[in-house]
Amino acid sequence: MKIEFTKMQGAGNDYIYVNTLIYPLPNPEELAVAWSRPHTGIGSDGLVLIGSSGKADFSMRIFNADGSEAKMCGNASRCIGKYVYEYGLTRKTEVTLDTLSGIKTLRLHVEDGKVDAVTVDMGIPAEIHPVDLGEGYPYREGIAVSMGNPHLVIFVDDMEQVDLPRVGPVLEHHPLFPDRVNVEFAQVLAPGRVRMRVWERGSGITMACGTGACATAVASAYTHRCPGESDIIMDGGTLRIRWAGEGTRLFMTGPAEKVFDGVITV
Amino acid sequence: MKIEFTKMQGAGNDYIYVNTLIYPLPNPEELAVAWSRPHTGIGSDGLVLIGSSGKADFSMRIFNADGSEAKMCGNASRCIGKYVYEYGLTRKTEVTLDTLSGIKTLRLHVEDGKVDAVTVDMGIPAEIHPVDLGEGYPYREGIAVSMGNPHLVIFVDDMEQVDLPRVGPVLEHHPLFPDRVNVEFAQVLAPGRVRMRVWERGSGITMACGTGACATAVASAYTHRCPGESDIIMDGGTLRIRWAGEGTRLFMTGPAEKVFDGVITV
Repeated sequence: MKIEFTKMQGAGNDYIYVNTLIYPLPNPEELAVAWSRPHTGIGSDGLVLIGSSGKADFSMRIFNADGSEAKMCGNASRCIGKYVYEYGLTRKTEVTLDTLSGIKTLRLHVEDGKVDAVTVDMGIPAEIHPVDLGEGYPYREGIAVSMGNPHLVIFVDDMEQVDLPRVGPVLEHHPLFPDRVNVEFAQVLAPGRVRMRVWERGSGITMACGTGACATAVASAYTHRCPGESDIIMDGGTLRIRWAGEGTRLFMTGPAEKVFDGVITV
Repeated sequence: MKIEFTKMQGAGNDYIYVNTLIYPLPNPEELAVAWSRPHTGIGSDGLVLIGSSGKADFSMRIFNADGSEAKMCGNASRCIGKYVYEYGLTRKTEVTLDTLSGIKTLRLHVEDGKVDAVTVDMGIPAEIHPVDLGEGYPYREGIAVSMGNPHLVIFVDDMEQVDLPRVGPVLEHHPLFPDRVNVEFAQVLAPGRVRMRVWERGSGITMACGTGACATAVASAYTHRCPGESDIIMDGGTLRIRWAGEGTRLFMTGPAEKVFDGVITV
């Protein structure tokens, strides 16, 4: 059976997108593993299914390259916004998505019929507090933030000095975070401009992390380094985060790009 | 402009194939770099152009992921055999290819209208001789073989003991090989069955190397370990090599698989 798919990427996070209204996939876990492989598969960070929902305009399910299901991915949700508009599934520029972590609202930035950026309402950041990592760790202080998933943001003066492959796994498994934690290192370059590198829980170093960028902006505002709005600059791209402070919703704006359309036989 | 392509792989070596009879690509070096990238590109080991030739049925040009042009790739030539047959460019099952290292002949193994394996005439192996690597190197003895490109084959009793990331680059730059050398480690598992791992000149560890498999079979026959025919078992797959000894042509048989068809805009 032939299945049409589209590979899209946002901030270097690339997924295979399939419209399950046309191609219902009975075994997404297996396909995510096989298709994500480089060389013998399509090659991607995972598989995203776009479907119908009784509660929102569309549903989104995300399967990682290891076949596990992810709750939410900011980069993938931006790409879905581009997909549903450009492939004619909707003419709306405000779209709701039913995800495993609730209903998310997207605002599409349309230019000449193309969606070149998408703003995602990422909800209200929670559990924001400074943490003391204790003696014997390479860094002593951080800011904990929950974006639905747990984050630990550590500010540094010089990103070049951060030995991420070494300190990432140590901090991911810090006893303060029994469910493990995503670790972001942040360096404020200028007002509203923050360089960030991430160690993702379960994945290690990645080019970009949407919720990690949000957590970094929250920590930057919370510590009075960058209030209001900031650009979080990652290896995979830059995301603009707007947040008015504790108790308010956070909005993430960033690119969504189509790489190619494909047809694969299963 | 929309360009149709096909991603194919042979023994885990994956390239993007474009029929330049339909889509002449003026800048293949740049496209090879951009398209080969994971995440933001299609993701591949490189780009292969299929075209016409005055000297053979088709021409083949291979561009590596870094944009450099390769002379020849056994894995890619098998995939071209499958492509030209299955996409209706020819009905022949013996096809000649005009490559930068001369005319190559392919024999297609067709089953139910599909090409499931291809045999490539790889020419006459040359410059076969034992080499003494000298003191101060992790291995002392090897067999040098030229398959158009230079190879150094080292036999070991236990592949698990080979620290390829460490010894590969040291041997690649051995002073006996001023143009650097592809390094193969080989362990004879049984008569006609050889496990091989490769350090490719300029690329490092790869899942498979067609000319490396040929050189390994040649060295195995030359040292009376496996005369005649042998299966060379690599991480990316297995190739069957037939060679009757010095001065005779070598034939490599292996799989060719289509991964998917795609359309990309440039």
